[in-house]
Amino acid sequence: MNTIKTKDIQIAYIGGGSQGWAWGLMSDLANEEAISGKVKLYDLNYQAAYQNELIGNRLLERSDVAGKWEYEAVKTIDESLTGADFVIISILPGSFDDMESDVHLPEKYGVYQSVGDTVGPGGLVRALRSVPMFVDIANQIREFAPNAWVINYTNPMSLCTRALYATFPEIKAIGCCHEVFGTQKLLASMVQELLGIEGVKRQEIKVNVLGINHFIWINQASYKGLDLMPLYEKFVDKYAGNGFEGSERGHWMNNHFVSAERVKFDLFNRFGVIAAAGDRHLAEFMPNTWYLKSPETVREWKFGLTPVAWRKQNKQALVEKSDRLADGTEPFEQKMTGEEGIDIMKALLGLGEFMTNVNVPNQVQIGGIPNDVVVETNAVISFDSVRPVLAGKLPKPVQNMVIRHVSNQEIVLQAALQKDKNLAFQAFVQDPLLSTMKPEDAQALFHEMLAKTGQL
Amino acid sequence: MNTIKTKDIQIAYIGGGSQGWAWGLMSDLANEEAISGKVKLYDLNYQAAYQNELIGNRLLERSDVAGKWEYEAVKTIDESLTGADFVIISILPGSFDDMESDVHLPEKYGVYQSVGDTVGPGGLVRALRSVPMFVDIANQIREFAPNAWVINYTNPMSLCTRALYATFPEIKAIGCCHEVFGTQKLLASMVQELLGIEGVKRQEIKVNVLGINHFIWINQASYKGLDLMPLYEKFVDKYAGNGFEGSERGHWMNNHFVSAERVKFDLFNRFGVIAAAGDRHLAEFMPNTWYLKSPETVREWKFGLTPVAWRKQNKQALVEKSDRLADGTEPFEQKMTGEEGIDIMKALLGLGEFMTNVNVPNQVQIGGIPNDVVVETNAVISFDSVRPVLAGKLPKPVQNMVIRHVSNQEIVLQAALQKDKNLAFQAFVQDPLLSTMKPEDAQALFHEMLAKTGQL
Amino acid sequence: MNTIKTKDIQIAYIGGGSQGWAWGLMSDLANEEAISGKVKLYDLNYQAAYQNELIGNRLLERSDVAGKWEYEAVKTIDESLTGADFVIISILPGSFDDMESDVHLPEKYGVYQSVGDTVGPGGLVRALRSVPMFVDIANQIREFAPNAWVINYTNPMSLCTRALYATFPEIKAIGCCHEVFGTQKLLASMVQELLGIEGVKRQEIKVNVLGINHFIWINQASYKGLDLMPLYEKFVDKYAGNGFEGSERGHWMNNHFVSAERVKFDLFNRFGVIAAAGDRHLAEFMPNTWYLKSPETVREWKFGLTPVAWRKQNKQALVEKSDRLADGTEPFEQKMTGEEGIDIMKALLGLGEFMTNVNVPNQVQIGGIPNDVVVETNAVISFDSVRPVLAGKLPKPVQNMVIRHVSNQEIVLQAALQKDKNLAFQAFVQDPLLSTMKPEDAQALFHEMLAKTGQL
Amino acid sequence: MNTIKTKDIQIAYIGGGSQGWAWGLMSDLANEEAISGKVKLYDLNYQAAYQNELIGNRLLERSDVAGKWEYEAVKTIDESLTGADFVIISILPGSFDDMESDVHLPEKYGVYQSVGDTVGPGGLVRALRSVPMFVDIANQIREFAPNAWVINYTNPMSLCTRALYATFPEIKAIGCCHEVFGTQKLLASMVQELLGIEGVKRQEIKVNVLGINHFIWINQASYKGLDLMPLYEKFVDKYAGNGFEGSERGHWMNNHFVSAERVKFDLFNRFGVIAAAGDRHLAEFMPNTWYLKSPETVREWKFGLTPVAWRKQNKQALVEKSDRLADGTEPFEQKMTGEEGIDIMKALLGLGEFMTNVNVPNQVQIGGIPNDVVVETNAVISFDSVRPVLAGKLPKPVQNMVIRHVSNQEIVLQAALQKDKNLAFQAFVQDPLLSTMKPEDAQALFHEMLAKTGQL
Repeated sequence: MNTIKTKDIQIAYIGGGSQGWAWGLMSDLANEEAISGKVKLYDLNYQAAYQNELIGNRLLERSDVAGKWEYEAVKTIDESLTGADFVIISILPGSFDDMESDVHLPEKYGVYQSVGDTVGPGGLVRALRSVPMFVDIANQIREFAPNAWVINYTNPMSLCTRALYATFPEIKAIGCCHEVFGTQKLLASMVQELLGIEGVKRQEIKVNVLGINHFIWINQASYKGLDLMPLYEKFVDKYAGNGFEGSERGHWMNNHFVSAERVKFDLFNRFGVIAAAGDRHLAEFMPNTWYLKSPETVREWKFGLTPVAWRKQNKQALVEKSDRLADGTEPFEQKMTGEEGIDIMKALLGLGEFMTNVNVPNQVQIGGIPNDVVVETNAVISFDSVRPVLAGKLPKPVQNMVIRHVSNQEIVLQAALQKDKNLAFQAFVQDPLLSTMKPEDAQALFHEMLAKTGQL
Repeated sequence: MNTIKTKDIQIAYIGGGSQGWAWGLMSDLANEEAISGKVKLYDLNYQAAYQNELIGNRLLERSDVAGKWEYEAVKTIDESLTGADFVIISILPGSFDDMESDVHLPEKYGVYQSVGDTVGPGGLVRALRSVPMFVDIANQIREFAPNAWVINYTNPMSLCTRALYATFPEIKAIGCCHEVFGTQKLLASMVQELLGIEGVKRQEIKVNVLGINHFIWINQASYKGLDLMPLYEKFVDKYAGNGFEGSERGHWMNNHFVSAERVKFDLFNRFGVIAAAGDRHLAEFMPNTWYLKSPETVREWKFGLTPVAWRKQNKQALVEKSDRLADGTEPFEQKMTGEEGIDIMKALLGLGEFMTNVNVPNQVQIGGIPNDVVVETNAVISFDSVRPVLAGKLPKPVQNMVIRHVSNQEIVLQAALQKDKNLAFQAFVQDPLLSTMKPEDAQALFHEMLAKTGQL
Repeated sequence: MNTIKTKDIQIAYIGGGSQGWAWGLMSDLANEEAISGKVKLYDLNYQAAYQNELIGNRLLERSDVAGKWEYEAVKTIDESLTGADFVIISILPGSFDDMESDVHLPEKYGVYQSVGDTVGPGGLVRALRSVPMFVDIANQIREFAPNAWVINYTNPMSLCTRALYATFPEIKAIGCCHEVFGTQKLLASMVQELLGIEGVKRQEIKVNVLGINHFIWINQASYKGLDLMPLYEKFVDKYAGNGFEGSERGHWMNNHFVSAERVKFDLFNRFGVIAAAGDRHLAEFMPNTWYLKSPETVREWKFGLTPVAWRKQNKQALVEKSDRLADGTEPFEQKMTGEEGIDIMKALLGLGEFMTNVNVPNQVQIGGIPNDVVVETNAVISFDSVRPVLAGKLPKPVQNMVIRHVSNQEIVLQAALQKDKNLAFQAFVQDPLLSTMKPEDAQALFHEMLAKTGQL
Repeated sequence: MNTIKTKDIQIAYIGGGSQGWAWGLMSDLANEEAISGKVKLYDLNYQAAYQNELIGNRLLERSDVAGKWEYEAVKTIDESLTGADFVIISILPGSFDDMESDVHLPEKYGVYQSVGDTVGPGGLVRALRSVPMFVDIANQIREFAPNAWVINYTNPMSLCTRALYATFPEIKAIGCCHEVFGTQKLLASMVQELLGIEGVKRQEIKVNVLGINHFIWINQASYKGLDLMPLYEKFVDKYAGNGFEGSERGHWMNNHFVSAERVKFDLFNRFGVIAAAGDRHLAEFMPNTWYLKSPETVREWKFGLTPVAWRKQNKQALVEKSDRLADGTEPFEQKMTGEEGIDIMKALLGLGEFMTNVNVPNQVQIGGIPNDVVVETNAVISFDSVRPVLAGKLPKPVQNMVIRHVSNQEIVLQAALQKDKNLAFQAFVQDPLLSTMKPEDAQALFHEMLAKTGQL
């Protein structure tokens, strides 16, 4: 007798027309033979979802595919949710034009953002746009799939997940992000580099994670019985000056997503704990004068400002590729994403139990941070259960910076829920990236950004 | 390069003259080839420790022994602690004569206790005796082994562990108890009984544990992908009336340590959560009128009152056996205890990571319970780290009962630290087992018990 | 220019047909010339309210009446609430027959209650009956008088007030009770008795109040610059044995409402803080074996069991008196009640600022007690504002007893809101007055009481 | 019989050589006939204390002096503390040269400070200097006057008072500050200005105060029955543009201590609550770009930068005046300070009970702010008792700013206690006044300031 449901699993994919994340999920599902079922793709752009239906279903026929999944594009969100065991949310809140405004409009005022989707002027305006969407999604989930497990990949992660819980407190939702994985990989590289141990997997690097998404910290790290904290100190000593460029993902000068880790190393030198996100994200949480003062400063710190123009170009290329994948002129290449979505679903079904970092409301898994705000720590995932572990406290100076952001995010949440522009500005003006602006300039920028993206 | 310390591990064993727990540890260590080192046995009764040195070292020569450990009896506690990686505390606080007073003196007043070492008049007086001992041990650990991990097996578990932390807040101590394992085994038996699945291991029964030692509760239980809570409801329906006597440990009428689980089933019927300790322990936390009103009531509920006379006899037999083991006339029989001490030590060394239930101060791993009191929940154990998982909240009526005991225990702690007899009595008189006594009778009993055991 | 609204004040009186409290209010209003307006009397028994309209309006004509108020009986609660500045709630939840069941039915099982309206079996069943009424009242206030200040006099005070806030969290409500005043008077008598100082007013006795209604404690008391705590110790030494019978209200043997304070003195001897309610109330919070074991025990402790038969008789006499007052055959006698309702209303209007004890949800005015439960402490009352003062913490043993009751009350609240009989029983069976009963007897009693009063 | 101690009261004055505060106290004591006793003046500068002894004792002979007090300069702090009923602490932490460095050195980096004694670079460095002094004073009080009530007037108020409690948790200390009084006076002026009511006293303006010293907020204000919040909105509308210059204290252009309240009005327009300190203080809590960007910005906002040179000149004048007062060539002019020290002492002795704003550790009198940090709210002062009232919560955006400062202050406290320069810098660099500096410049400034004042 098999006690675990492994067949006929139903996944609702909100944002199912995406080219990046949806194809990644297809790859990961195709590689996993233990479970099978159906993915219902819902997207505001039905055509894109339908194209993914075609792409996904082609995999069913392939002999090299272990996991058998049917894909179906649906026209309404409730069709996707009804009967769902899992809900994946991976949407773009607004358009790339909106994102262009979020990221680049502040440059007029001398404010540069490396990503612009989390905090800073871009992140906050994006949040104001996202919260109502997530309120709506949460209401739909409450009605059509109240017992489903919800995995959110959308940024701004903290506020999107917070909006789900604020709307439907009993929701079983987690936010997942791979930034910590990147740091684990960096630590694995370090072990190889300094100790000559080959083949260390990122999962073997045990870390205690605490913070908020994209501004996460590690205060305990080990590889087997080896304490990595003193080793990291040596590593930083060696590379803080010129950066560590051994990453497999390419060189920071040629790639908008990599860096030489100099921001991460500088933060370690200052605070004594490991910042566990990419430099592009970390920099945005700090005052403007630290790492993002100007494009020159950014170059000195050896990371990049990701232009939205690049995203638009890339999107265009993906749309064309999508056509080729859908009509079969290009074969779908299975490429494991390294994301953990499938592992998490398996664990929730009762197939194994494991610990990883997730974003959920604080119930004092991090001490000294207010309750209910969404924080990122490790959690144990097992059958129908996600239980955060007690992660302890951040060093006071780091806690202070984290609290500044979570307080601001709580204001943004309320402002978005109440459609209170004035309240939203009170958060906006307190963002560290705007710390060098006069309040009247911040106000002008804020209204220009809202006008451009048609908000509030 | 091996990053994990697996050799030359040093264990300080406080109470190292014990026959039960010490021999168990010897067996478990002998079975585990991954680690080796030295155990320093310290006991108030040096002779008993020395005898265990002889017994333990005989194992070194045996070919059927995988784990190589040297044993050494030492005359002072600091000798055992100096250099220790781990400290095991397993002592009898006081003598069996003291315990006879704890358990049986209250019978004069119509108060029966099935164990008498946790709460109730016996547990509280035992705690008053134990706290100063654990204050002393904590001070020694702070001085001689501040970085060692400490595993306490001594009852009253909550207050002994609490005293360690109250004295030395940075101590790395956990309290370990096998009562939850018993409940996992019961659930495994249930799975076999009701579903016909054979060979289920207790470790495969995943449970969310929350409560205080010996008064622990499970509100989520699964076997692989199977939710065991509705199954348990059926199981209780079937066996609540006559009890479940399928336990491997023998029949309750012939064994002071087993029961027919009727108390456990009754508590489930009342509160909807699984009480996760033996009936003998559970009964002592409830008002006197429920399960311990009289020996007849106890018989109806099909559990036993463990007489201290039995413990004394058993002790005598063990002392004799000790002589035979020491001089080699009886061979030491390796018998795995089923305890997790060795697994915990391995995990703390970096050999694997696992989750089990431990007793540590509450940092809101259980909601609605005051901070700092020692609670029992699951925790993730990995390299140099024990991190409780967030266990959530108890149902309000159970929370009320638990809080009553933890509040009482906090008073006992203060009373023991301040040697305040009057304060101790304020806790004593509020114990549910004394709920039918007039306060003046409770006072008489209290003073008689203190006089008998020479306390305060 | 007069900045304070002193005319055209409108009071909604819920329970406006009462003979006791309503007439008291009339007296107090008649004595106070600073404010005037209209009282709208609402009662399930319209006729009684109408009779009070007649009685109240007769005062308008009298030359010896300083405060000019018009009275109007209304037929619906919303008529009384619309336009109200203040709402007074003073109702009998259920009938005296219900109360007879609450108080006397448990006697069959050997459980005696001196009042039976707060805790104990009677109090809890009364609470189950009251909560839905207060939910309804709170909903009406939200709709018709959301900005009015609400003064509740109804018992069970804690749970009635709690139900108001649970239903309408923004309500501006306080619960008022005179038990602390009685203790202040006792302390004034003590000052006279031991120090020979005459004419001390109860308002001059400054006390720090903390606890829950009818189970309140004073840990700091002074008269001018004199610390009364050591004086009280001497006073208790002198009178604990035989009781203090100097009270102005009559002798405990002849009056159902007075006592010789022996319970109060005993509690001081045990816990070192002053219990600040009448002995009849205090006794009901303690385990059955302490003060209420039997009518004989009660006599020894020199307080009384108030029979509901007396209340019924008294009611009959009041009804007859009401007829005489209404038709003018008996003149209304102005008699100040000593209650503070009028002073509170004046302060809320901006006429003076003062400090007194009130019942409101805990926002940590008492430490160590859960938030949101209704507690009694001092508060500063001024224009449109009631601000509790930080009262500190109770001694641990007292805190333990208080928490036991508040936890129970929270269960009763949920049980009443959810109409969950089983949950209600979980609170019932944990009440200290039932601590000597077997759970099956408690269950039988519970169901009998519910059946008798037609509840759940 | 007089129950209140009114004679032979002993006050220890730490900083008793001061010219400003000490003479103020002499005036106030001289005006109050209800109490009398002795003031023991202790100062690092004994000569200054001795001169004040001479000045104070001259008052004893004057017929126009109601309050009879003897003054005595003592050479050690324990002499002043032994036997003290009250301790007043009013010291200058360091010299005016130190203060010159605190205030003016940052100007080199474009950072202007209007006072420089609370937060900002000057406030933080002053705090690093003050904390060890207050640790020392607290230790002396514990030893020599553990039951005395301590009134601190020294800035930085929050951290000095925090250091007292961190060192001696049972200390009975409050911090007193007159900034709220100024706001009450402003509101009184407003009542006169807008409503034509004359002679309103500041004590008649009832306010709910919440925040931290010099960054305090009022969310409820009334005069008798009049809600002042809507009136203040009108007032701000009228005067926000050009400022309100009706203050009795002189014009902001001619006086370093006054302002046109434009900062206060701007903060109200932004946050909807009344900032209750002088503009010079308020401005220092906000980001550098708001009100202190440059001397021109300050002029636009119509407040002043108080130069330390002025303080030095003023000091010189006072020293000369001190000589004349001591030798009698100039008569001492009694001038009531408007401070409440004497009223507070009287209330603590049992002479009256009143409510005012004080600085004490947070025990949740303000919600949403961490415990133990020193906050400013109203408190009820009566015999041997100071009890804060529950002040509620700040609006979220203001709370965020307050938390940023209290978190920073906690870091400074730890840094000062542990003499950890690196930790101190983590707070320094997060101060809003430095929000436009690059971290390396902040570091240079920090070290220069420490070097100049010889610290850490």
